[in-house]
Amino acid sequence: MASHAATVRHARREDVPAILELILELADYERELHSVEATEAKLLETIAFAPDDAPDVAATGNMPQTEATSPAKPARCLVLTTPDGVTAGIALYFYNYSTWRARPGIYLEDLYVRQTERKRGYGKRLLVELAKEVVAMQGGRLEWCVLKWNEPSIKFYESIGAKMMNEWVTMRVDGEGLTKLAALLD
Amino acid sequence: MASHAATVRHARREDVPAILELILELADYERELHSVEATEAKLLETIAFAPDDAPDVAATGNMPQTEATSPAKPARCLVLTTPDGVTAGIALYFYNYSTWRARPGIYLEDLYVRQTERKRGYGKRLLVELAKEVVAMQGGRLEWCVLKWNEPSIKFYESIGAKMMNEWVTMRVDGEGLTKLAALLD
Repeated sequence: MASHAATVRHARREDVPAILELILELADYERELHSVEATEAKLLETIAFAPDDAPDVAATGNMPQTEATSPAKPARCLVLTTPDGVTAGIALYFYNYSTWRARPGIYLEDLYVRQTERKRGYGKRLLVELAKEVVAMQGGRLEWCVLKWNEPSIKFYESIGAKMMNEWVTMRVDGEGLTKLAALLD
Repeated sequence: MASHAATVRHARREDVPAILELILELADYERELHSVEATEAKLLETIAFAPDDAPDVAATGNMPQTEATSPAKPARCLVLTTPDGVTAGIALYFYNYSTWRARPGIYLEDLYVRQTERKRGYGKRLLVELAKEVVAMQGGRLEWCVLKWNEPSIKFYESIGAKMMNEWVTMRVDGEGLTKLAALLD
């Protein structure tokens, strides 16, 4: 299977230009290019990277420690490289928490495979690597969000064991709403 | 306002029995007591606490540093104490990430106010403290999930500036599905 020949490892600082390229391609695909504020500098500040000299091992193999995650650096990033050296996909994620289980887990914020590199199992490969990390950390769950109208993706996700959390809806406070809420009791 | 007289601070290890009590009360309220695996020992392992001798300052004031968050310890917890010393509410949260903004934020996993301490603005107070932390960290957003049928809560959340992310649905892989996914390409 093609995905076996690809390498998946934790992002190093040198991967940032390729990571930004993929983020921009994803945003363009969703016609949201105007709302991207990410820059190479901002990604360098907010992702916990593997050391520059880390070997090309699978993300969950003898994985070199990445920098510690922190409030300012909550994100980690897996990069998938093809046998001919193309950065074909990324999975940006952070650690979540289940109160009832009192266990950590992984929330996948963005999964993207370059359009020219589709249909090779790369998306599945990235999801499998994340599931392996959750299992390795004795974590409880792997979660992510998908647009409701994106039926092909939902079918794919269900085919690999994901369940839709239909009874729940996400609430968000951002932008001006956030500064207002922060000052609400002042 | 009552909520001003209450203290909100980061949880210390000594708060764990009260935190577990509130988690169990929440689970009982949702008729899900049987699915709670949390114990005092597990909470001690997975929450990043403030030092035992930390002063009783507001969570976002001159806040004593909590332990570092990490894959094994991703959660933080705010506790709200009434003027007469009752632990009346908790907010369990972790740091999330917005790729397009390349900024961190906060995801509120569980917010709970003891039933005997309702209608005093404590829930709002906890949300305001979290919003302050997001602003202080130059973060992008504060998010949480709510059950769709829980209209009173949704109305309250909307009244303080939250938007429903109706176009999105959460996908989850856990339990047996997780070990299967981790082994899918072996």
